[in-house]
Amino acid sequence: MKAPQAATLAGLIDSVGSPVCVGLDPVFERIPREVTGSDPAERFKSFSNGVLEAVRGVVPAVKFQSACYERFGWRGVRALEESMARARELGLAVILDAKRGDIGISAEHYAAAASNAGAHFVTVNGYLGSSGILPFLERGLGVFVLVRTSNPDSSRVQSQILQSGGTVSHILARLVEELGRGFSGGDLSDVGAVVGATQSAEGQELRTLMPDQIFLIPGFGSQGGSARDILPMRRKGHPPARAGVLATASRSVLYPPDSGSDWKQNIRDAARRFADEVRAVLQ
Amino acid sequence: MKAPQAATLAGLIDSVGSPVCVGLDPVFERIPREVTGSDPAERFKSFSNGVLEAVRGVVPAVKFQSACYERFGWRGVRALEESMARARELGLAVILDAKRGDIGISAEHYAAAASNAGAHFVTVNGYLGSSGILPFLERGLGVFVLVRTSNPDSSRVQSQILQSGGTVSHILARLVEELGRGFSGGDLSDVGAVVGATQSAEGQELRTLMPDQIFLIPGFGSQGGSARDILPMRRKGHPPARAGVLATASRSVLYPPDSGSDWKQNIRDAARRFADEVRAVLQ
Repeated sequence: MKAPQAATLAGLIDSVGSPVCVGLDPVFERIPREVTGSDPAERFKSFSNGVLEAVRGVVPAVKFQSACYERFGWRGVRALEESMARARELGLAVILDAKRGDIGISAEHYAAAASNAGAHFVTVNGYLGSSGILPFLERGLGVFVLVRTSNPDSSRVQSQILQSGGTVSHILARLVEELGRGFSGGDLSDVGAVVGATQSAEGQELRTLMPDQIFLIPGFGSQGGSARDILPMRRKGHPPARAGVLATASRSVLYPPDSGSDWKQNIRDAARRFADEVRAVLQ
Repeated sequence: MKAPQAATLAGLIDSVGSPVCVGLDPVFERIPREVTGSDPAERFKSFSNGVLEAVRGVVPAVKFQSACYERFGWRGVRALEESMARARELGLAVILDAKRGDIGISAEHYAAAASNAGAHFVTVNGYLGSSGILPFLERGLGVFVLVRTSNPDSSRVQSQILQSGGTVSHILARLVEELGRGFSGGDLSDVGAVVGATQSAEGQELRTLMPDQIFLIPGFGSQGGSARDILPMRRKGHPPARAGVLATASRSVLYPPDSGSDWKQNIRDAARRFADEVRAVLQ
């Protein structure tokens, strides 16, 4: 099997019917009062595990923002590892959003760490070229390479026009597509791309450059992206599991408006609304 | 003071007379037999602390390759944090080579983690633009932004020619220079650049684009760079502490040929040879 992680993800999307992902970007100040713990990292773990139990069966995948946990030093990293293991136990696809970007043996180390922690996919920065990406694939992980990010100032680098035509982000898109051929199941590839929801205007062109890629699309909810932004990026004529998109929302699901119900139920409801919304636009 | 970290580094370079840095990229298989520990991470810490004691007073700075430690999960991160604290105690400038590259609050988290661990500088990936770099500076850290890396396949991205002239790496160089103006002590800036020793042919042009930047230059020793490669990159007419270069060697210092002496003395001798070599070419 040449794209084991893409196949796992497609299977999970199939079972819930919507290609969405909940981002775990916990921020200390916003964790519900009911969640306790002996130190900040323990509280993070309790909250993360509660979120995982809440979204299980509603969404196929979760994305851990490594920075939120690393902020608390090694105790935070321990909490991250334990929650990633729990996500895997619960049958969720696990994306480690660490945006790692080193080469050679250092990239191998990062890949080993992510793999040992239970990740299926890792987000990776491709500015250093293929030697920053291949070690993850050679470990059997899937990757999402940063191609076009959602922050407004990303254009300063990513939208510069090349002499040969296209933009800097297209260099990355071509690299992703090329590497992806070696890790493709004849349909979707284990080499995916990060494309921000707010970059929807460029989505169609990026899809042409990367036909077999899964686009990890952050920026929904709080960051202003809407489900409709997926449309130009999807692979047309495919069912949700093969549409090559994975829409990601973090804050809008983790911290929904208080509905009076249990905090986990509240998060489960918010995850369901997000999944339904994305399912609806893809039909 | 607008460039506190550059000033600290310059002071330390002044006191030893050579702008060099020893990279701590420990690999389990190559740690001397004499170094023991209850688990791999503990052995890493013992080795790292031994290296720090050996190079103290011989070199002004050390660079920790985060990946080597992260490979061992949270225990590795704990060892990294403890060794970084030790480096700071010993009066060394501490560079965390983590190549972090995220934006907004995630970048703030990474900055907080690096700062809490005792880093003076962090290596950062600028593909996402200034919002991936500024949070580190706002925390009071110095940064080295990846501009031109030493791996051969980096040209695939970094050497592409722009319609407006110059290469992709020049976009990053200009961004670094611009951001650097706000964090400059009127001489050197807290916003530095990573430029591989093997990219010496482009060094002079990059120096023109980044006059006030410290270039962190990895790739000496095992990776084939020689002290002479620094010459086109240095700020001409300045003493070593203000020459804007920091030459980095890792494996050639950490694992020198066995001379029969104590392993720490052996590393100290290798660090001294490296420092002498760089001092000599700058004179």
